[in-house]
Amino acid sequence: MIRVGIVGGTGYTGVELLRLLALHPEVELAAITSRGNVGEKVAEMFPNLRGHVDLAFSDPAAADLKSCDVVFFATPNGIAMSAARELLDAGVRVVDLAADFRIQDLNVWSKWYGMTHASPDLVREAVYGLPELNREAIRGARLLANPGCHVTAVTLGLLPLVQAGWVDSSSLIADSKSGVSGAGRKAEIPTLMAEAGESFRAYAVGGHRHHPEICQTLSLLSGQPVGLTFVPHLVPMVRGIEATLYARLTAEAMRERVDVQALFEQAYADEPFVDVMPPGSLPETRSVRGNNMCRLAVYRPQGGDTVVVSSVIDNLVKGASGQAVQNMNLMFGFPEDMGLRIVGLLP
Amino acid sequence: MIRVGIVGGTGYTGVELLRLLALHPEVELAAITSRGNVGEKVAEMFPNLRGHVDLAFSDPAAADLKSCDVVFFATPNGIAMSAARELLDAGVRVVDLAADFRIQDLNVWSKWYGMTHASPDLVREAVYGLPELNREAIRGARLLANPGCHVTAVTLGLLPLVQAGWVDSSSLIADSKSGVSGAGRKAEIPTLMAEAGESFRAYAVGGHRHHPEICQTLSLLSGQPVGLTFVPHLVPMVRGIEATLYARLTAEAMRERVDVQALFEQAYADEPFVDVMPPGSLPETRSVRGNNMCRLAVYRPQGGDTVVVSSVIDNLVKGASGQAVQNMNLMFGFPEDMGLRIVGLLP
Amino acid sequence: MIRVGIVGGTGYTGVELLRLLALHPEVELAAITSRGNVGEKVAEMFPNLRGHVDLAFSDPAAADLKSCDVVFFATPNGIAMSAARELLDAGVRVVDLAADFRIQDLNVWSKWYGMTHASPDLVREAVYGLPELNREAIRGARLLANPGCHVTAVTLGLLPLVQAGWVDSSSLIADSKSGVSGAGRKAEIPTLMAEAGESFRAYAVGGHRHHPEICQTLSLLSGQPVGLTFVPHLVPMVRGIEATLYARLTAEAMRERVDVQALFEQAYADEPFVDVMPPGSLPETRSVRGNNMCRLAVYRPQGGDTVVVSSVIDNLVKGASGQAVQNMNLMFGFPEDMGLRIVGLLP
Amino acid sequence: MIRVGIVGGTGYTGVELLRLLALHPEVELAAITSRGNVGEKVAEMFPNLRGHVDLAFSDPAAADLKSCDVVFFATPNGIAMSAARELLDAGVRVVDLAADFRIQDLNVWSKWYGMTHASPDLVREAVYGLPELNREAIRGARLLANPGCHVTAVTLGLLPLVQAGWVDSSSLIADSKSGVSGAGRKAEIPTLMAEAGESFRAYAVGGHRHHPEICQTLSLLSGQPVGLTFVPHLVPMVRGIEATLYARLTAEAMRERVDVQALFEQAYADEPFVDVMPPGSLPETRSVRGNNMCRLAVYRPQGGDTVVVSSVIDNLVKGASGQAVQNMNLMFGFPEDMGLRIVGLLP
Repeated sequence: MIRVGIVGGTGYTGVELLRLLALHPEVELAAITSRGNVGEKVAEMFPNLRGHVDLAFSDPAAADLKSCDVVFFATPNGIAMSAARELLDAGVRVVDLAADFRIQDLNVWSKWYGMTHASPDLVREAVYGLPELNREAIRGARLLANPGCHVTAVTLGLLPLVQAGWVDSSSLIADSKSGVSGAGRKAEIPTLMAEAGESFRAYAVGGHRHHPEICQTLSLLSGQPVGLTFVPHLVPMVRGIEATLYARLTAEAMRERVDVQALFEQAYADEPFVDVMPPGSLPETRSVRGNNMCRLAVYRPQGGDTVVVSSVIDNLVKGASGQAVQNMNLMFGFPEDMGLRIVGLLP
Repeated sequence: MIRVGIVGGTGYTGVELLRLLALHPEVELAAITSRGNVGEKVAEMFPNLRGHVDLAFSDPAAADLKSCDVVFFATPNGIAMSAARELLDAGVRVVDLAADFRIQDLNVWSKWYGMTHASPDLVREAVYGLPELNREAIRGARLLANPGCHVTAVTLGLLPLVQAGWVDSSSLIADSKSGVSGAGRKAEIPTLMAEAGESFRAYAVGGHRHHPEICQTLSLLSGQPVGLTFVPHLVPMVRGIEATLYARLTAEAMRERVDVQALFEQAYADEPFVDVMPPGSLPETRSVRGNNMCRLAVYRPQGGDTVVVSSVIDNLVKGASGQAVQNMNLMFGFPEDMGLRIVGLLP
Repeated sequence: MIRVGIVGGTGYTGVELLRLLALHPEVELAAITSRGNVGEKVAEMFPNLRGHVDLAFSDPAAADLKSCDVVFFATPNGIAMSAARELLDAGVRVVDLAADFRIQDLNVWSKWYGMTHASPDLVREAVYGLPELNREAIRGARLLANPGCHVTAVTLGLLPLVQAGWVDSSSLIADSKSGVSGAGRKAEIPTLMAEAGESFRAYAVGGHRHHPEICQTLSLLSGQPVGLTFVPHLVPMVRGIEATLYARLTAEAMRERVDVQALFEQAYADEPFVDVMPPGSLPETRSVRGNNMCRLAVYRPQGGDTVVVSSVIDNLVKGASGQAVQNMNLMFGFPEDMGLRIVGLLP
Repeated sequence: MIRVGIVGGTGYTGVELLRLLALHPEVELAAITSRGNVGEKVAEMFPNLRGHVDLAFSDPAAADLKSCDVVFFATPNGIAMSAARELLDAGVRVVDLAADFRIQDLNVWSKWYGMTHASPDLVREAVYGLPELNREAIRGARLLANPGCHVTAVTLGLLPLVQAGWVDSSSLIADSKSGVSGAGRKAEIPTLMAEAGESFRAYAVGGHRHHPEICQTLSLLSGQPVGLTFVPHLVPMVRGIEATLYARLTAEAMRERVDVQALFEQAYADEPFVDVMPPGSLPETRSVRGNNMCRLAVYRPQGGDTVVVSSVIDNLVKGASGQAVQNMNLMFGFPEDMGLRIVGLLP
């Protein structure tokens, strides 16, 4: 059993962590903090937790987080970068679900997040928590940067192609669609149901924070800067991301008559949380609702040189809290799928 | 042509008024005000109005509202009660879509709305704008109180029964269900799509402001105080109200073998905006989407003494802005359905 | 470990049974049948089961159901009444999720289900599977009739009041609202998303099959025939039922100043799957999404003689497959919540 | 006044035609046919038409369609190709909302639609009804092929770029998303709300019938065969299409520092039903709900060589019946927007 703390538990990644950790056989929930809700029972705010979580929110200053084995930050960007050090110094491992430690290039980070970074050294130390890319490093991590939601769907869908060098990595396209829970539990007009319901639109076409994060990983894999056009969209549903990815096979790959289906199947053969579907399948977001799987299908329409990948995740699970638990399992030597053997809720 | 002004046009009743008035053949839109958005084009905030409404929001203090023939208040409760007088004194007619002039008993009003009323004399003068009840008075009104949304669906569904004295008016039940646009365009967590989507719940079971408003009308019709249990619910959709109403026939009505279907058909025979469906019908909210109709069906399950009425409206049209235009038409001697001959958007 | 068979696994109660049983520690899935899909992998039809259920549909005639310890019928009405006997004779226990064994009065059953019953003796033997009513009988049952979805929400919400004799049981009202999965996985126009989406309506106002089933239980508890008006509605969401129940306290109960909150808390104090919320709460269907709980709140608006209960369940879990697993646990002496310790999916 | 007939009026394009034509000042609805619903009032099937359309469905064989000035075919593919000739011979103009006359290359048509064409000569005569491309030809058309829904959104969004020759037309990408009404009013499992609700997925990735139709137009404009990857998706909403389009500027266009915003504004300056939004805008499908507009925004993310266009329409209006009425207006010399001056329903 490990003792687990959560800083900032009033958002959707917080309640989702609680849903998963409440039933995790090796986890004791020690503390959950929220400056604005001290003393309120978590299950009053999130009644699905009634009978499962008896904790009340405590003050971040007063909570005994240092006695935890691991602390999750489910806070807005810019909190963990200051607060993590004291915990790390006390021997606590830290998983940040926000973006504070995701981007190695601090100039890029500052440009997109509008702040100067408080702890550049911790950024250098942080391990990027995409297990399919980084499993060994994650096992030894003290400080883990949990990836973004669009990022996870897009990166897992392009990774084998870019790694194999089969596609022109200067003109990748990611058309990604997310349910509204991705915007967080914040009182804002654009995500009211009367605004976002029964409608569909793109957002952040000019630039989205997940763009540099995807590019960082793909450029590393490719050995050179990738060119990516990334357009996120808002879907009138609560959970789920589907990313449709477009890449052009290189002339060499065409000549060699490469088999992209086989490429994906081999790349993810041993992955517990990536499911490459048979040819002709159409992944639905609901097939992973509440579940930590990334489900993929690969196509070459009309047998041409364009590869299309459809990649679905639950943005709050594999796109956030589920992946964080998967990372925690790796960090503490638990079976990687412990607490995550959940069947997706369909219908 | 009349000149029309709108005070507080950034909410859903505001944009809905604009949708209807933009195509009204006798209306010239003179001004629309919003303290917080001065100078912004209305069509920037509401792109459905691009090409239809060229106005920008103006400051309420600066707008030349006194030159209008009629001014609509699409403001929060408590604004019109102070601001209407100056306009009335200048000979402008006023239609209030909020609740400032709906309740004649000021103690009741203060209890539910949490304010002392600024203009008791205007409350006494105000005409309650339910045309099916009050058509003649509306024609001559200077100051009109436009009814609430749940109120309209419930009152029209119970009115013939209570007026005929056929039901026990001490134990009426109204189980009403509203889409989320009824909560207005306000940045609040409970009406985020991630909160209100894919879920259903009651709200305000302990007491809702529409309760005294319904009781006021029905008590007047009944000649004695009515007893009403009113429970509103939130439906995961944008527009529409369905109220299911339960009333018990009196022993006398049972003995006389009354025909409730005929009662409703006769009561609403000449009404342009109440549609009594044939026996066995099931009104859907979508059949009145964007349209000013209240569509009703009446049942007596198993031929017993309980009458069930299902009443549907579009909460933003017959429940708010459409009814306001209907009232305006009456006040200015236009055909009652002018600008309101719109077919409901189905599917 | 027990061996479990499912007859008719292509509907929503079938896939939901599989979701729950796939992770049940005492269950081995032995067979799942479907006449029309023999040989097809279950996980091809329901991709959320990929990696969890490896079975293919088999022919009901060929499947070795007699070697199972228990067989679930997730079939249309009228199948189990003929097919159950052979299994029972072979010593297999049977849980019917359809309505074949729910109604003891066969004339009533025939009237509502439009068939003559094939096995009247089995109806007499069948145990009605509402654990909160019938736990002991369920433990010994060979043949179990799993309750209807609306029935479960309504019955649990009225049970304490009727049992205590505090309300006038001749004028009960149940205004129930269900998500569209309650209509089943059948190719029909009225439940297309383009028909049922963004709209709300009542259905079956003239009479619904769940009416006699609710009345049977409540009449038994009350000791006399109850009078119930039951109106179901269709909500534009996938899962969930909310029933708002209205009952009038008797004059005696009013004189005795009864405490309905305490009544409910005591009635359900030891129930693992009924959660009476604190006064003033508003149960949301999403708080039980994917979860076997029935969550209730009780009100007396304005302190009057009308009691209002809001009762929510997931129609596919406590309203069908979850309750079936709860019953199976009782029948086989497993902990009642085994395989059902699932946190509701919120948001 | 012209006399109008509709063949096959029980689908969504049929009811949408009726919504628009019922209020068209120059149209008299003469007949609407449906083999399976003879004698049923149209308004019984579609209650939004109560009070607006009094017609009953008549038998196609018996209906006096030859006395009409124009007949719309809102039938499945393959009906109009046989039935149109008799009407044309009688001097009736024909607008086909299905695909029978859209594709000039009959081999391509047969491959995608799985039939041999009954009237090749009529295909040659038919005018393709995209007014922004073909306005003059439409004015004189006897037989009009109304474009597909995805086709309209995609073609209008790419047309200026391809026409100008500024983009590499061998690698165009169209990621299109449609509400479920696009699948029609057919009893099928995949578009049940319990299947399509709260989920998102691609469909027909291997090939969709709208692909050759888009390519036909763009190849004509480009002067050479275009290469297009087209992936349609299903959105959990009723109405609306958003197409996100990706095209790479040619080296020459980059050198000349072309202004794509200006290109679109000029191309569509005089179009009544194409609205190019200001830079930085994000078109929402709801802004055109019920309305005939195609609303577009154009971007160059990070100022690179990839042009992104977001194009929204209402699939049942500009994507089907609204465009058909626009074409009818052109064919009969009415103002192009007659009967189509409707403000989009927002929210």
